[in-house]
Formats: sequence, structure tokens, C-alpha cells
Amino acid sequence: MRLEEMLSTHPRPPQMGVPEITAFIRTCFECADVCLSCADACLSEEQVQSLVRCIRLNQDCADICEVTGKLFFRQTEADAATFRAQLEACIAVCRACAAECDKHADMHEHCRICAEACQECLQACVQMQERYPSPSAGAIS
Amino acid sequence: MRLEEMLSTHPRPPQMGVPEITAFIRTCFECADVCLSCADACLSEEQVQSLVRCIRLNQDCADICEVTGKLFFRQTEADAATFRAQLEACIAVCRACAAECDKHADMHEHCRICAEACQECLQACVQMQERYPSPSAGAIS
Amino acid sequence: MRLEEMLSTHPRPPQMGVPEITAFIRTCFECADVCLSCADACLSEEQVQSLVRCIRLNQDCADICEVTGKLFFRQTEADAATFRAQLEACIAVCRACAAECDKHADMHEHCRICAEACQECLQACVQMQERYPSPSAGAIS
Amino acid sequence: MRLEEMLSTHPRPPQMGVPEITAFIRTCFECADVCLSCADACLSEEQVQSLVRCIRLNQDCADICEVTGKLFFRQTEADAATFRAQLEACIAVCRACAAECDKHADMHEHCRICAEACQECLQACVQMQERYPSPSAGAIS
Repeated sequence: MRLEEMLSTHPRPPQMGVPEITAFIRTCFECADVCLSCADACLSEEQVQSLVRCIRLNQDCADICEVTGKLFFRQTEADAATFRAQLEACIAVCRACAAECDKHADMHEHCRICAEACQECLQACVQMQERYPSPSAGAIS
Repeated sequence: MRLEEMLSTHPRPPQMGVPEITAFIRTCFECADVCLSCADACLSEEQVQSLVRCIRLNQDCADICEVTGKLFFRQTEADAATFRAQLEACIAVCRACAAECDKHADMHEHCRICAEACQECLQACVQMQERYPSPSAGAIS
Repeated sequence: MRLEEMLSTHPRPPQMGVPEITAFIRTCFECADVCLSCADACLSEEQVQSLVRCIRLNQDCADICEVTGKLFFRQTEADAATFRAQLEACIAVCRACAAECDKHADMHEHCRICAEACQECLQACVQMQERYPSPSAGAIS
Repeated sequence: MRLEEMLSTHPRPPQMGVPEITAFIRTCFECADVCLSCADACLSEEQVQSLVRCIRLNQDCADICEVTGKLFFRQTEADAATFRAQLEACIAVCRACAAECDKHADMHEHCRICAEACQECLQACVQMQERYPSPSAGAIS
């Protein structure tokens, strides 16, 4: 609830609807948190050896999604080129992490949930890209 | 929803009830996020000069609350002395940040909400301390 | 000194020379730290109002450069597509932050140093991109 | 070099000598980085199963030391009670992590170096505590 209130009372209102941007930020932060927890759950599994790649990608995905959430939460003087590039980084890491977690989804429920969260975050980033079209898009060549 | 599911499917179940620990972690992460946003909102205010101390404490509070949430989210091989000390750090910074935000609560709605979030996080940490009593507590001197 | 030792004793040696990768990681971490400090120094300036955009970009740049350093410091099971995209994000934010800091370089020595650190990090990322060519590069169309 | 320059050109000079505070901040950041790398190196070891506690404490230590460095790097409007509590948290986690890494120091060079970095950071925090005496210290009871 409070994230939405914060954006509503911000002296610079978001460039899109408050519910829409709040949902995006929440998705990024949730994916970051779920990845942190998946890395930790994998570390406690007996077959940790087989989950090494999963743990590593969970860590990268947690780090990148957290920063994506922070960037879009800040309303002050944003740089569009940075936003575009950060969305690409977030899409890349969510794709890699979802693919890896998916391999363990039958064995480990936490990997199944994490793959789901990564997929959702990836989709949210793809949708957000429409708001930040690359400067050359639509240009007559 | 997913944070609770992650803890429920973790190979090492939390030492307290899943809803209880999830609520605590959420409170820490929400306080971190609200502080990040309050710093950013203050930065966009015309009277930013008068909000400098608020921004600084918001940043510290965001950093410390985020780490507190991460520590308690990890279920693997926790160290109790670290948890105890981290709770103290979180209480100290929430107290300082709540007090500062409170001074601007009449002027800035985002400061009022942030003071509230800090107070709530502070109370949650105080309650969590009961779970991690200091080793000497109750010792006969 | 210790970062280099850590990479030298890692069970999976880096894919490039230890001095080269260590220098890159140091550049990212230093840029992150300098940006954090520049944001804080700007916040203490009397003309903070004129430095609002600088502070915001400093924060983004600190966040992204820190994650870039972390990603490349981890040697376990890296994902090349994520590395490529993260380098792009790092280049975008370093460019934006360097350009903004540069505007205040005559007035504020900390902005001059920060612009320098961002430029250096940007160049380091551009060089690192050669190690992670995009899959389509050089493909016969 | 640049961290020292940033503190020297900060509008609010540090309360202690620039070389002294810079050395402290560097020690915190280096310990954080070494812990990140040790967690990653452990993850790549064949006997990762026996290093699970080490990885977990490395992660906590990386998170807390990084925040300690950030807090003391910021010169604007610091809160002494927060600094005191954060030093305690940093001491607690460095102690736990050093003790665990020490157990694997004969087997893994990265654990030996990490234990050393944690011990050094712990000592630096203990020394820094003298600068932030608790309010009741020296009070006549």
C-alpha cells in the first residue's frame, strides 16, 4: 500500500499512472526478493552441487532486479537511455534465471515459484519498454 | 504472496511461524523502499535545502532496513549474534529517520508516511529482539 | 591487493588475465563509490537546488556500477547475455552521469573527479564488450 | 586514490583526518568485496556441501560491511547512534565470518584470505568505536 501512497504524494508525479508504475516496481522488487530466497533455499538442499548455476543466476537476478526497481521508483530527473538499457539487462538476467530455475522446478518448489517470478518480471520489463522506445525507433531510414 | 510461499517451500523451515517471519521481512523491505522514495521525493521539493538531513537519514535507513530484511529472509545457518546486532542497528536508524521525517510531516505527506513506516519497522525489530535474547539475559549476577 | 588474490585462488580461474579482470572490477567499484560520495557532497552544497539532477544520476550510477562489479567478480557459471546487457546499462548510466557532473566540474571539484571516474568506467566497459561480442556479430547474413 | 580526493573536496570535511577515515572505508569495502568473492569461490568448490555455512556468513558479511562503508563515507548530517549500532553489527558479522572461514583456511586459500580481511575489518570497527563512545560511557552511576 505504502509504495503507491509515496508515488501519489511525490512532488513530481510519475509519467504514467500510479497503479501501473507501482505494479511494475513491485514486480521488480518481488522478483529480487524471490531470487534471494531461492539462492538461499538451493544452498540448503542436499543436492546443492547440482544447483550451483541456479544459485549464481539467482544472485545476479536479485541484484539487477533490485536496481531496476530502485531506478523506476525514483521520479526525480530520470535518464531515458539508462532506463532503456537497464530494462534490457533485467530482461536478459530474468530470462537466464527463469530458464535455469525451470530445470529444477519438478524437484524443488522454490525453483518453480522463482521461475514464475522471473517470467513475470521479464514480461513486465518488455511491456515497460514500450514506454521507453529507442530514439531511432520509427525513424525513416 | 510469493515471499510466504518461498519460506514454506524452503528445505529449512523458519524457526518461527511462516506468517510471522514473512510479516517481519515485509516490514523491513517496505521501510527500505519507502525511505528510498522519501529521499527522492525530498530531492524534488522546492525547499530541498531544509530536507538535507532527512535525505541523508532516509538513505541510511533504506540501506540498513534492506540488509535486515535480507538477513532474516535467509534461513540457512544463521548467526544469532549477528541478528541481534543488526536488529539494534535497524532500531537506531529507524528511530533517527522517524524523528527527522516527523519534523516535516505537516509540510510533506511523503515524510509523514515515511515516519510511520520507520516507526512500524522499529516496533517490529523490538518485537523480534524477544526471539533473539542476549546470551547474558536472565543470567544471575 | 586482496581482490587479485581472491581471483587467483578461485577454483574457476577467470576467462581473461587476473590483472585485467581485477582492474575492470576495481574501476566499477571505484566509480560506484565515487558516485555515492559525489551525491553526498552535492547534498551538502549551498546550491543543492542546482545539483538535483546530478544527485539523482549519481545514485543510479552508484547502483548500476556496483552491480556490474559484482557480476564480473563472480566466476561461477556466468551468463554471457546478462554480462553484455549489464555492460550496456553501465555505459548508459556512466555517460549520463559524466555529462551531468561535467557541467558542475568548474564549480565543484567533487563533480570534476566524479565525471573522470564515470568516463574511465565507461571506457572500461566499452573495452570489456570486446570480450563479450553479441552472438550475431560477424555472422554471415 | 579517488576516495581520498572525494573526502578532501567535500563541502563538509570529515570529523577525523581524511587518511584515517579513508583507510576505514576502504577496509569495509574491501571486506565486503572479499566476502562476495569467497562466497562465489566456495560455490565453485567440489565440496560445496561442507561450505554452506561459510557461504551464508560471507553473504551477510558482504551486505553489512558494504553498508558500514557507505554510512561512514557519507559526511552529510550523520547520526552518531546509528554509527555506533552499525559498528556493532559489523563487528558481530566479521567475527562470525572470520571464525567460519578460519575453519577452512587450510583447505581453501580464499577462505584464509577472507578470514584475514574479516579480522582486519573487525579491528578497524573496534578502533572506530573509540570515536563514537556510547552516551553513557564515563557517566557516574
